[in-house]
Amino acid sequence: MNDLIKRINHVAIVVPDFDASMSFWRDALGLDLAHTEEVPSQEVEVAFFPTGDSEIELIRPTNESSGVAKYLAKRGAGMHHIALEVTDIHAMLDRLKAHNVRLINPEPVPAAGGKLAAFIHPESANGVLVELYQV
Amino acid sequence: MNDLIKRINHVAIVVPDFDASMSFWRDALGLDLAHTEEVPSQEVEVAFFPTGDSEIELIRPTNESSGVAKYLAKRGAGMHHIALEVTDIHAMLDRLKAHNVRLINPEPVPAAGGKLAAFIHPESANGVLVELYQV
Repeated sequence: MNDLIKRINHVAIVVPDFDASMSFWRDALGLDLAHTEEVPSQEVEVAFFPTGDSEIELIRPTNESSGVAKYLAKRGAGMHHIALEVTDIHAMLDRLKAHNVRLINPEPVPAAGGKLAAFIHPESANGVLVELYQV
Repeated sequence: MNDLIKRINHVAIVVPDFDASMSFWRDALGLDLAHTEEVPSQEVEVAFFPTGDSEIELIRPTNESSGVAKYLAKRGAGMHHIALEVTDIHAMLDRLKAHNVRLINPEPVPAAGGKLAAFIHPESANGVLVELYQV
């Protein structure tokens, strides 16, 4: 055991558009829509629903050429990734490298709001795209 | 907003076997393996890793004919469902019916340890298999 992982920061779901999605997540389930935000660097818009000490995050591509747009075209809507909030992303990446885990980002990349993020390759994580996220 | 949803109880990941999976989730990431449990009614074995106030749950089929075994054969390992812990599963199901959400279980079914569960059809939830879970 280590103290590097604090919690599931969010579970991300890729969707084609927000209007149809809101009718389920917000209106039917009754989750609170905290805010939406465009992330130009990733060519997506995201919507956040706080749930306990995690969030459900909807992602929609803002054009047809982004990575997320291609994922959506190939696989359809559904779960996209799970983000684990870590206390020290550099220490966690060192640990994963020592275990020969395949990393999409061997070094952290800047995320929204000055946060740091790094993706683990699904090949090393039972087909799951795992994001490490340092707040 | 309502107070029916407390948190993400767990995110479930379907895997072919536990030994190979443990090397990532337990050994590399360093998550705590709380316990494993066989669920004969669903023909699976599950492994729980507490993470914040949620859990990451690995599911492996214990035979080749179960629903989970067929899912694994068709789609490969990956995220299987997200479980939302609710305070009143009957009230939530009534609410979803009023919103014409398609339900796999229109009434709660017994889950392990006397809990109640009901699955929402992915068709109504952006391709995501959502479990309602009352502890």
